[in-house]
Order: sequence, then C-alpha cells, then structure tokens
Amino acid sequence: MAGNTFGSLFRLSTFGESHGEAIGGVIEGCPAGLKIDIDAVQAEMQRRKPGQSKIVTQRKEEDEVLFLSGIFDGITTGSPIAFQIKNTNQKSKDYSHNKDVFRPSHADFTYDKKYGLRDYRGGGRSSARETANWVVGGAVAKQLLKNIQINAFVSSVGELFIDKPYQELDFSKTETNDVRCPDEVTAKKMEQLIKKIKKEGDTVGGTITCVIQNVHVGLGEPVFDKLHARLGQAMLSINAVKGFEYGSGFCGARMKGSEHNDLFQEDGTTKTNLSGGIQGGISNGMDIYFRVAFKPVATLMQNQQTIDKDGNATEIQGKGRHDPCVVPRAVPIVEAMAALVLADFYLLNKVVRS
Amino acid sequence: MAGNTFGSLFRLSTFGESHGEAIGGVIEGCPAGLKIDIDAVQAEMQRRKPGQSKIVTQRKEEDEVLFLSGIFDGITTGSPIAFQIKNTNQKSKDYSHNKDVFRPSHADFTYDKKYGLRDYRGGGRSSARETANWVVGGAVAKQLLKNIQINAFVSSVGELFIDKPYQELDFSKTETNDVRCPDEVTAKKMEQLIKKIKKEGDTVGGTITCVIQNVHVGLGEPVFDKLHARLGQAMLSINAVKGFEYGSGFCGARMKGSEHNDLFQEDGTTKTNLSGGIQGGISNGMDIYFRVAFKPVATLMQNQQTIDKDGNATEIQGKGRHDPCVVPRAVPIVEAMAALVLADFYLLNKVVRS
Amino acid sequence: MAGNTFGSLFRLSTFGESHGEAIGGVIEGCPAGLKIDIDAVQAEMQRRKPGQSKIVTQRKEEDEVLFLSGIFDGITTGSPIAFQIKNTNQKSKDYSHNKDVFRPSHADFTYDKKYGLRDYRGGGRSSARETANWVVGGAVAKQLLKNIQINAFVSSVGELFIDKPYQELDFSKTETNDVRCPDEVTAKKMEQLIKKIKKEGDTVGGTITCVIQNVHVGLGEPVFDKLHARLGQAMLSINAVKGFEYGSGFCGARMKGSEHNDLFQEDGTTKTNLSGGIQGGISNGMDIYFRVAFKPVATLMQNQQTIDKDGNATEIQGKGRHDPCVVPRAVPIVEAMAALVLADFYLLNKVVRS
Amino acid sequence: MAGNTFGSLFRLSTFGESHGEAIGGVIEGCPAGLKIDIDAVQAEMQRRKPGQSKIVTQRKEEDEVLFLSGIFDGITTGSPIAFQIKNTNQKSKDYSHNKDVFRPSHADFTYDKKYGLRDYRGGGRSSARETANWVVGGAVAKQLLKNIQINAFVSSVGELFIDKPYQELDFSKTETNDVRCPDEVTAKKMEQLIKKIKKEGDTVGGTITCVIQNVHVGLGEPVFDKLHARLGQAMLSINAVKGFEYGSGFCGARMKGSEHNDLFQEDGTTKTNLSGGIQGGISNGMDIYFRVAFKPVATLMQNQQTIDKDGNATEIQGKGRHDPCVVPRAVPIVEAMAALVLADFYLLNKVVRS
Repeated sequence: MAGNTFGSLFRLSTFGESHGEAIGGVIEGCPAGLKIDIDAVQAEMQRRKPGQSKIVTQRKEEDEVLFLSGIFDGITTGSPIAFQIKNTNQKSKDYSHNKDVFRPSHADFTYDKKYGLRDYRGGGRSSARETANWVVGGAVAKQLLKNIQINAFVSSVGELFIDKPYQELDFSKTETNDVRCPDEVTAKKMEQLIKKIKKEGDTVGGTITCVIQNVHVGLGEPVFDKLHARLGQAMLSINAVKGFEYGSGFCGARMKGSEHNDLFQEDGTTKTNLSGGIQGGISNGMDIYFRVAFKPVATLMQNQQTIDKDGNATEIQGKGRHDPCVVPRAVPIVEAMAALVLADFYLLNKVVRS
Repeated sequence: MAGNTFGSLFRLSTFGESHGEAIGGVIEGCPAGLKIDIDAVQAEMQRRKPGQSKIVTQRKEEDEVLFLSGIFDGITTGSPIAFQIKNTNQKSKDYSHNKDVFRPSHADFTYDKKYGLRDYRGGGRSSARETANWVVGGAVAKQLLKNIQINAFVSSVGELFIDKPYQELDFSKTETNDVRCPDEVTAKKMEQLIKKIKKEGDTVGGTITCVIQNVHVGLGEPVFDKLHARLGQAMLSINAVKGFEYGSGFCGARMKGSEHNDLFQEDGTTKTNLSGGIQGGISNGMDIYFRVAFKPVATLMQNQQTIDKDGNATEIQGKGRHDPCVVPRAVPIVEAMAALVLADFYLLNKVVRS
Repeated sequence: MAGNTFGSLFRLSTFGESHGEAIGGVIEGCPAGLKIDIDAVQAEMQRRKPGQSKIVTQRKEEDEVLFLSGIFDGITTGSPIAFQIKNTNQKSKDYSHNKDVFRPSHADFTYDKKYGLRDYRGGGRSSARETANWVVGGAVAKQLLKNIQINAFVSSVGELFIDKPYQELDFSKTETNDVRCPDEVTAKKMEQLIKKIKKEGDTVGGTITCVIQNVHVGLGEPVFDKLHARLGQAMLSINAVKGFEYGSGFCGARMKGSEHNDLFQEDGTTKTNLSGGIQGGISNGMDIYFRVAFKPVATLMQNQQTIDKDGNATEIQGKGRHDPCVVPRAVPIVEAMAALVLADFYLLNKVVRS
Repeated sequence: MAGNTFGSLFRLSTFGESHGEAIGGVIEGCPAGLKIDIDAVQAEMQRRKPGQSKIVTQRKEEDEVLFLSGIFDGITTGSPIAFQIKNTNQKSKDYSHNKDVFRPSHADFTYDKKYGLRDYRGGGRSSARETANWVVGGAVAKQLLKNIQINAFVSSVGELFIDKPYQELDFSKTETNDVRCPDEVTAKKMEQLIKKIKKEGDTVGGTITCVIQNVHVGLGEPVFDKLHARLGQAMLSINAVKGFEYGSGFCGARMKGSEHNDLFQEDGTTKTNLSGGIQGGISNGMDIYFRVAFKPVATLMQNQQTIDKDGNATEIQGKGRHDPCVVPRAVPIVEAMAALVLADFYLLNKVVRS
C-alpha cells in the first residue's frame, strides 16, 4: 500500500488498523529545538475522541498518545518523532458479522478485491480510527506554526446552514457546543436534527468550513503542489469527504471576472478576498478559507441489502456504536490536515531564495 | 520551486515559462513496449490550442510537440520520454506593461514576494501555457490506459447549466460545438453568453464534468493517496480551479445515509452510484465522475485598479488576446490530468499482491 | 532529519534512539498475501544481538520484535507493517559522562553542531542500535525474495584475510563460529586476534563480503538507481563503513579491458564474472558479490584526548560494554540492507513492461 | 525506468539517448536570485567533451548547452531550469553492427532482457553520453556552493599511482596535462601508458580522488542519507565505476581504533582526518576526500567472442572512436556528482532548526 506518507519535508507516515495492537505514526522533518507541549497534543485528541457527547458514537477509546522518540527533555532533537496509540477497546466480536459481507458504501468490497484479503475487524486500515494519527501529526505541526491560527467549524448539517459570512462568527464559540458550530442558534437546531436522525437509525452529512489566519505571503509551491491543491488532497483524504472548494469555490464558477477579481490596495492587501488567500497556488497574506463536504456515515442502524464474498444477496445492519453525523468530530481532523499542509510549505519556503 | 513533478511511478516533470525558449517535460516510468501514436498526441494539443474558435483567445500558438527521447521506432523503450514545445509566438512587448504592476487575481504579486523576482512576460511559469505540457503527458497516459474512457465536457457557464444527468448525454457531441458541451441546446446558449461577455470586455466562470468509464476495480492507494484525493489535487492544480467534488459531492452533504448508500447487486455492481465509482479511495468498477469549478479569467479588457511594485496605486487593462471563458479549452486539460492520475495508479496496482 | 526512509516501493522508515522508549519502523509497500514467518524474523535479530559470544559486546538487549499492524492471521494485508523493539536495558547512567564531551570519531560533535542539541545517551539516533530496525526490515524483505540467497560473511579482520575465492567457501559454516567467517582456519585466527585486541582495550576493523545468488536478470534501474549504486548507498549507511566495491572493485581499476571483459556464453551466462553480476546497473543473472570495509570501533577502553562543548581540552574513556570488532555482528546487517535493496528493485521491475 | 532523478531538494532529472535527437535535463529546486555564469557551465562541458586530446576518444561532440527555462536576465527565478544538448554527431551507422549482438561487459544484454527491446545506437540510454547532463547539473550546483572547493584528479592509471598524500599536490596543475593528474612526473608516465594501451587496441582502468574543501559543519542527513552514502551512490552511478571509499577507506579496515580515531583539538578541528571530513554521516568541517575506482573501458579495438540475440556465438570488434582510458574525462563528472550531492544537503540543512 503506497500513500501512507503525507508531506515532503514535514512528513507524517502512519500505520495501524482499527482493531490491531496499536495505531501510530512517525513525524519526520520536524526541526530541532522546538519545545513540544504534550498536553496540547492530548487536548486535540480529546476533541476527536469518540464518546464526548450524546451526538457522537458512544465507543470509548482512550486515545492516549505515547511518544517514543525524537523528543528529549521536552525538546525536538531533529530525529523522527514516533508515536503510538494503543487500541484498548477493541471488542472484535462487534465486527465478526462483517467478515464475509460487504457493507454498502464502505471500503470492504474494494479492499477485498484489491488486496485479495482484508482485516475485516472494524474496517481495518480503512477505519476512520486512522485519523487519530493525523490529529497527532497536526498537533505537532500547529506548534511549529506558532503564529498561524487555524479554525475549523461545522457550517452545515443536512439542510441546516450557517447563513453568515465567517467574519461575523466568534470562533471561540465553536467548542462551546456539541456540534462545533460557532453560531449558537444554528448549533442548537443542528443538534436537534442529529438526535432525530440518530433515533431513526439513520445518519446525515454536513460541511466543515476552515479559516486560516495570519499566514505570511509565500507558502505553496506552484504547478502541481499549489497550496490549495495540497489542501484539497489533504481534505479529500479524510474519510467520507466528497468535495472541496476554497475562496469563491463553486459559486465563483457562476460569476463574471469584473465581480470576482480581488483588487489590490496600497498595503498589498486586497479589497475583497474571493481568491481565498491564495493566488497562483501561493498564499497572499489574506485569510485562507475553504469548505469540505462530508457524506452521511455509511453505517446505519437499519437493515440494508448487500452481498457476501461469493456474490450472494444478504442483509446487514450496523452494530456497535457509530456516529449519526461525522462532522462534529471531523473538525479537529480538518484542522490537523490543514496544519500538516502548512507546516510542509513553511519548511519548503525556507529554501526558495539563494 | 518544488512540485514540478506529478505522480509516483508514472511521473510527469515539467518546465518552461510562457515566453521563454520552450516549454516541455519528461515522462518517466512509462512502461517499455508501448506503441505511441504521435498523431493522437498532437490531436489532443489541437483541442487545447488557443485560436480554435471565436469564443477562445485568438493567440496563435503552434503547439507542435517534439519528442526527444524514450521512443525508438515508434515504441517506448522504458527510458524517460522527453518532449518540447517551442514558444513560437512570444510577442513579449504585449506584456511589458506588466513588469512592475501586479495584475489583480493573478500570480504576479505572490511570485514576486516569494521569489524576490519574476519572469513577468505573460505570467512566466504561472501561465496556463504550462498546461500544454500536461496535455502531452496525459495523451501518452491515455495510450497506456487503452480500455478506459475519459470524457470531460463543459457542464455550466455562468448560470447556464446542463440539466440532465450525464447518462443522458452523448459524449460524441462534445467536440461538435465550440463550447464543448454535449447538450446542443445548452451549448448554443452558452456560446451566446460567452460572446456577449467577451463584447463587454468581461469574462465568466464555469464548470467541467468528467466521466471515466471502464475502470477496473482496485485503482487508488488508500490513506493519503486515495483515488479521489489525487484526482482532486490534479484538478486543483489547473489554473483558475476553485473547487472539486466527486460522486454526490456537496449535494451528498445534505443527504441522509439511507438515501446515499449504494447497495450492492449480486454481480458486484451497485444499484446507485453516489459513491462516484470510488469507495475507501479505491475504484469499485462503477463510473467515476467528478465536477470541477473554474473561476472567471482574471485578465479583463477593462480598466482595473491595482498597485505597482512599490505599493503605488495604478490602473491596468488586459492587452493581448485572452479567453473570455476558460472552460472550453480546459476540457482536454481535465482529461489529461485524470489520465495521469489513473496511469500512476494503474502501475502502482501491479505491485500490491505478492 | 531527512533520510529516515529507504526504498521507493518497498520502503523502510525507522525511528528511535539508543536509550529512548523504543526503536522501530514501518515497512510500507510489502505486497499483500505474503505469509510472514515471525520466528525467522526473530532469528535474524538473534544474529545481530549483542552478548552472543565473548568477542562481541556483553550488553544484554532482548531485541524482541513486536509487530503492530499490517499482518492479519499471519498474512500481510498490504497495509504498512509497523514494528517496535523496546529498549529494555537502557542503563542511562553508563552514558552520562558523554553529555558535554565529544567522543573522538563519533557523531557527537556533528550532531551537536547541526541540530544545536543532541540526545547524548548512548549515541542517541546515531547509535548502531538503529541497525536492529534494518534487520527486521531485511528479514521481511528476505521472505518476499524467497528464491534469492543472500550470504554475507567476515572476509577480513585487521590484516587477516580469507585467501580463497568465495566459490571455494561453504556458506553453511558462517554461523558455526563467533567471527562469522566460513573459513574455519582463518576464523580461529581472527577470533584470537579480536580477543587480544579486546584485552588491550583497543578495537580493530575488518571487511564483510556478501554474495547474492539466484537473482534473475533485470533488477536495478539504470542511471542514478543502478543496482550497485543503491547497494553502495545501503552499505555506506551502516555505521562504521568506509568503503564499498563490487565485482572486480578497486582491483578492476588496475586491469586492462582484455583481461576484465566478461565474455558471453551461448546460454547467456558469462565465462568470467568480474562484472559482479551487474551490467549497466542491472542484474545479469550471474552471482552478485561485493565487499564492505568497516573501520575499527571508535569507543576504546583507553584514555583519549578530546574536547568538551565549550572547546576545553579533556579526556574520555569508553565505559559500558562495547564491541572490540564490529564485523561479526554486522554480517546480518549487510544481508538485511542487501535484501531491502533487492526487494525494492524486485517490485520496481514488475512495472517496466506494458 | 525509475531512477532518472538525483537529489531531494536540489534535483536533477535527465533524459536522452546517445543517438537520439538530444539529451538534457531539468534542475528543480535551485533557489531564486542566483546569478548563473553560463560560460562557466560551458567550460565544465569542455572538460568532459570527447576529442580534447590524443589520449581520449576522437569523437567530436559539440556539447553546447542550451538553457530553456528558469533563468531570466541571467538570474534564476526559482522555476525549473531545463537544458538541452543536441546530438549533432550521431553517425548512427557506426553502431548498426550492435543491433543484434551483445557487447561484452556492456549493458546491451541486460537492457534487452529487462525492457524487451533497446535503442542499440551507441548504447542508447546506457551511454556515458548521459554524463554530459550531470556535468551541466553539477556546474549549476557549483555556482550555488560558491565557497566550497571541489577538486578531483586522476590518482592512478593501471598500476601507476600518485604516491603522495593529496596535501602535497597542487590542484592547479590538474588541468595542465591531458591525464588530469596534478603530479607532473606521474602524469607523464600515465600518458605514455595510455598511448601504449591504445596502440594495442586495449583499454585500462584507473582511479580518481576527489577532495572537497571549505565545507561547513552540518551537511548530510544521518541514517540512510549519510553524506558519504549519497556520495557513494552518486559515484557508483557513473559508468564503469566499481568501488568507492572515503577517508581511510579499505585501509581503515586493517587498522586499530587507537590508530584510527581522530582526536579533537580545542578549535573543533581534528589532529588527523581518517574520518574523511564526515562523522555520523555529517560533515565535520575537515576536508572531505574519497576515491573512486573505474574499470577499463569495455569497448576494445580487438576481436571478442560474444553472442547474438538468439544465443548464437559470434564475434565483435569495437568500431567508432572510443576512450582507451576513461578517467581523464571522468574527472569533471566526479566533481559534478559531488556538487549535486552537496547542493542538495546544503538546502536540506536550511530546515533542520526551528
């Protein structure tokens, strides 16, 4: 399996299956001399953790990160930073019914056909548990990017949208409700919707918006590694993501150039920011913002028709504890992936001038 | 500048500025023994070429591809395939007015700040002329992927959308009109809109939809190199792209799981295909389809306020010959980038089983 | 720190410091469906382990490998294979005297200057303990390369050399003595020499020869990744290695073409094999053989002049338990690195033809 | 064909066959703002060029480098620097006799078996003509490494060796004789030997020593990308190279630790330099020096037995114009590859500290 490494200079390589011994990863290329706040890393893990509230899965995972190398007396040494998260709550029997059956809109079928076998326990390598590794990597990246603020939040659940521009939101409110929506009125409606959906044994999709502020000019490598292209790849790597747009996004495709262009002001800022803080694949110092679409979780507490390995029709119903809506828990994951992208470009940008 | 190479096993590395001596690239990893149809490559170049019709830029570029290596007696040898496209129609004076002025919503400002200088002639490295290289690479990739059909087409211009599902379209009609929209009625309206916009000295955005058929199960490397994540990166690399969605895309984020799941049929196909042919980052054998949003071209034939290098307010007006709408010419570029992604995953998939 | 990953398709990424929590690594790209013999892996670890005999360091390290992912029911799944080796015998106090002093011909000085700090316990990341990770990776690679035989052995210690061509040696004798020299008479002399050197508190260098048999034609990627260039990089990565030669090696530089050329026979083999089984960077089916030079271990049980961090003259004497001669324990490391090189080229060779 | 790119941040990717249209390459990652002295690049090409003296091949190749991109008004822009060297003197008929016959100790057999076909004209991709590309890349790298001196020279031809340490040589004498040996007495003997060998229709091997001075502390990435491991890979990539040693090299393997260790002096230099300027894979500020072994050229002006594609015995005799001894022309190639290695590590070293 290729593609387990993200980044070129600041690199995260990960491993692990949902119900194996442990998951974990190696952060390579983190500069030496950086003081690491382990508690801040663990705090990010708590945000992603299952079982935090009534609207997310009640699975209990401790998700305690153990760092194994690369940090000495609390300071990075420049060596690879390895970490590990034990799988303490494996409950493999919850998943044995999946052994020979392909869950609809999951990765069971494709893994099986591609590799000839699969670790069927809880999705194995395709489980969203993998994203816990990304949160660790992102938490370290955030510490490298001291002055940059990355704020993601839930901007829609089903048909419920925040109807304000992000500039009118108070990001400090994001963590005050279970949905992670900084608009309190909308948050409450979203919470009710998710509870209702859950009761129906169903799930619902949503979107997350991410705003990155205080980025200096120059991050991003044009051509194939444009800043937004790597952000796009990063977001589309997250389980259940179906779309990515930045700046004006799909709306921009309806506009005229005279409406869309961002005119420069004498201080180098632009009057508008439909560019989303990125021009020619390089940050221009304005806010970077983008939106990520998540499909509804595929595991339903309802009967669904499907087939087994031999192509026989059968039925399946979700067991165990699953999220009725993935976006609240995906907020820290979006931030983590954004941080990984920026940390890599931050280092790459150190070598562009002779 | 990092990021001039796309792919891991089937790799395209490119170079060149809009008004330098030549642009070109090197295709590494193309297997030996493949018969190359040079005319088919050149035919793709004609589709991308400026000056094909009244609704695109009237710049004349010959865009003749010269292969320099890696092909012997018409067959690939396994060695790097280098190619080159001369810049025959440079007209540098058209661009001298850009030397000290930053065009709004272009890459002038960010390149200048990042690198400390820039090749200001026609956008230099940030010019969409670079995409001619991608079309060459994609044309070779298509020949490797013999049985896979990749069909892109214009699905919207401004507010004008094709209102049919792609299954009702006849892709053979795409090349019969200047807009490259397979729905003839909509195509005509789009053409009129673009002509009107052009007359106003303005530009307009649009979207391209791409459908990939006959892909076997197993392409894509899960985790960070999911098939759709690499497609997303590829599309977002294209100049002017603001968004990418596949399968149900942003609509999927409004749906419930019971509506969204694709139930398996006994032959391994699915009843619906909201997954867009990809599950867990791996192709499942169903049609892959995605949509790409392009902003309106930033160069306007109107006066715009901007600043010069020293931060003084000034004005700029597009000179030369520019596209009022980029999507018709971007259709072969979308196909080329899709082909590059698939060719790479096709090779990677050869080594997954022992 | 870049450079913690070896290989392109079959990749080993490692981490860990001598006296950290654990060392370990991730093997990415191992094909799915391979039955892994864990005991065989552990057996390789025993060969490298300290404390095996009187002529190697008496440090006790359990070196028990724990696999964390990528293997399900004893079969590889195609997912990354992570492993870990706990540092059970850390005895950090043995090394505290190194904190502010640079040991001669060690990496203390260069790490300190490069990174601004170092994990001074037992060499930290620069410790040869890292090679335990390589032996794990190599042991898995060997299982992928079923039919290929890789046999390394000690060919010289100090001035004592095996004076026979490798064809006259019985490789099954290599493991029958503590020096790992398949020529029993020379082995005995070497063992006596090492014991004498140890008693003097000194150390001695040596060479290892490696013979790889049953390699099919076609492994190696010409230009910068020639088979012997990657073997050279691999061997020169091993701690204390000062030189690498393959086939005729440095002797070949004294010869005439008419003596050196390997003439083809009608079955495609060559009459002689001064090429060392590699022509143009690609295996030709003949035996691959090469020789690796190891300097004497730098840690002496004698007083040596050196300096501290502030540039003051001081003295240092090795403490703890160190090897008087590194080559006996380096034999499995040479084999492991050779296996990693071959496994990578074995996979790369699967995609060269269309 | 993988492996056509060298380096990670300062990267050279090459293409081209001996008798194709052109050879060339792309230098990616060269920082912006570097003034490029094109004459200095061309001067390095003249050193490598065939036909310079009576002891090298009389083939005439113009080897004129044409830069296509990445340099604007003589300054690097940060964009990829593409270059091209036309094959003006192809004389393909000289090589037609090779079509179905495998030249002994050449790459004909292995290319044919690996790829299923080959460009048989002059060795195709395996031709040493490829090294002209490396000299271009190295010449640019040298300009980035302003203060570092890289001096390679011929240290032996056949059994004739310079018998002085390099410290006693005057490197400015290297270019004063045809052999490129800075010791004039030895140079004369070498020249006579090569002429004699040439008259016999034979060839002879030799070694090149390279000394790199004024390297600051900290270049090299430990573990798999040790400075000497990458230098080794670089040198072993050069056609006809059979061995590499640095510092004490193979002699070091005969020594005792008490003789071999380099004791630190209060200024951070070492009393001796058996380490060859590298400790733990990182430069320590002392001179870096290494030696490279070249086998005798395989093309002889004598009859040799061989086989054809169908395995039938036949004979072959070198035609065309070939070098009786490769080392004089390989001197600039060794320097170029060393420069590429150092340039890459120079950039990587800019990101090691936070």
